[in-house]
Amino acid sequence: MTYCVGIRTNEATIMISDSRTSAGVDNISSYSKMWRYGIPGERQFVICSAGNLATTQAVIAAIERDIKNTAETSLLTVADMHQAAEYIGKVSVAVQEKAGGGAVFEATFLLAGEILGSLSGLYMIYAQGNYIASSRQVPYLQIGEIKYGKPILDRVIQESTTIDRAIVCGLISMDATLKSNLTVGPPIELYILQHGSLTLGRYRSFGEDDEYMRDLRKLWNKAMESAVDAMPRLTLS
Amino acid sequence: MTYCVGIRTNEATIMISDSRTSAGVDNISSYSKMWRYGIPGERQFVICSAGNLATTQAVIAAIERDIKNTAETSLLTVADMHQAAEYIGKVSVAVQEKAGGGAVFEATFLLAGEILGSLSGLYMIYAQGNYIASSRQVPYLQIGEIKYGKPILDRVIQESTTIDRAIVCGLISMDATLKSNLTVGPPIELYILQHGSLTLGRYRSFGEDDEYMRDLRKLWNKAMESAVDAMPRLTLS
Repeated sequence: MTYCVGIRTNEATIMISDSRTSAGVDNISSYSKMWRYGIPGERQFVICSAGNLATTQAVIAAIERDIKNTAETSLLTVADMHQAAEYIGKVSVAVQEKAGGGAVFEATFLLAGEILGSLSGLYMIYAQGNYIASSRQVPYLQIGEIKYGKPILDRVIQESTTIDRAIVCGLISMDATLKSNLTVGPPIELYILQHGSLTLGRYRSFGEDDEYMRDLRKLWNKAMESAVDAMPRLTLS
Repeated sequence: MTYCVGIRTNEATIMISDSRTSAGVDNISSYSKMWRYGIPGERQFVICSAGNLATTQAVIAAIERDIKNTAETSLLTVADMHQAAEYIGKVSVAVQEKAGGGAVFEATFLLAGEILGSLSGLYMIYAQGNYIASSRQVPYLQIGEIKYGKPILDRVIQESTTIDRAIVCGLISMDATLKSNLTVGPPIELYILQHGSLTLGRYRSFGEDDEYMRDLRKLWNKAMESAVDAMPRLTLS
């Protein structure tokens, strides 16, 4: 399994992904699930993936081949984020069909980015190749093992959330998932794409023993205890 | 779906259950999923259920029939909580086999209680009739839609947790699930069995517009925002 989350606030899109891949409990490995592409001043993209590792690797290879070969349609030619999502969906469906199709070869993607002259966007691309954009009401999208990390997003994230708050909230969402599910693991990758800048985003990777993540978990656990204790007491007969 | 959680601290066992049952989005109804039995000074039980409604109702009916008919084995004759769990597992398997068997008729149960002369206990009884007890390391058990409400339990609940803290933590775990999943809904039921008392536990039901639950959600959302803001800021290049 995998956990990736994209949060699109008014100021920026924040993407966070884990790196664990597994085929059973004794075949665990670590692969990045985040890819970044861009031409400064023109277009910037970040892609995260969940699902079959062979499918996601083949999709990324095809995306990069299309860029290198200056194909008619590639991330460098699409006119807006909607077209970018459609392109990735098509590539993904073709890869899955080539492998024989079926649920085992499925993969889903998060795509965030911005292209000069059009709006920035955050999309989730289903295994079937269709896709949805994040909304103003729910400005985040998740793929993979999404349930453990959802409540904190539901409670805190809004379009107007500051970048700092969204980063911490996303990392706590990831930490909740790491703690509860063995198939999600470090390194954690974080990428922040500032809307309107069209420059490469800020990137950070958090390894197994990352000091910031360790402090965050410890402080958050304490904050939860204090928050629970600060809630009104229930009077029971 | 359903969400039920049992928390067994040093002092008491706290059980919380939702009441939504559904067979598709336009066939939603409300049934209690919590049953309490006891003889003051001798034995006390609370049972929560998840899964097929017909199965759970038939299991509860059989448990109550065995009590009424003073059957050789019933909740009134078992000598300890381990035997009580085994008895419910047997009843459940028999009911499922009668219905034809298969995943659609499955149900899982949480059982908590205490019998004079033996230890109190909290058990999860699988559809297959086997069962596990809560542990000192992880003193809670969940059935149904368990993922949304797990992180807060993972972060806060220990054997030494006070009753008040465990109640609030369990209700927040339930609220996180309610908020994220349409198949879990009010009324929420809460039951607190004090270890060693062997008297009827304290009970509370929370309806759709319950003031305490509404305040708890509002205050908790605020507390989460404050807690996020109190975390150390990440310095990024």
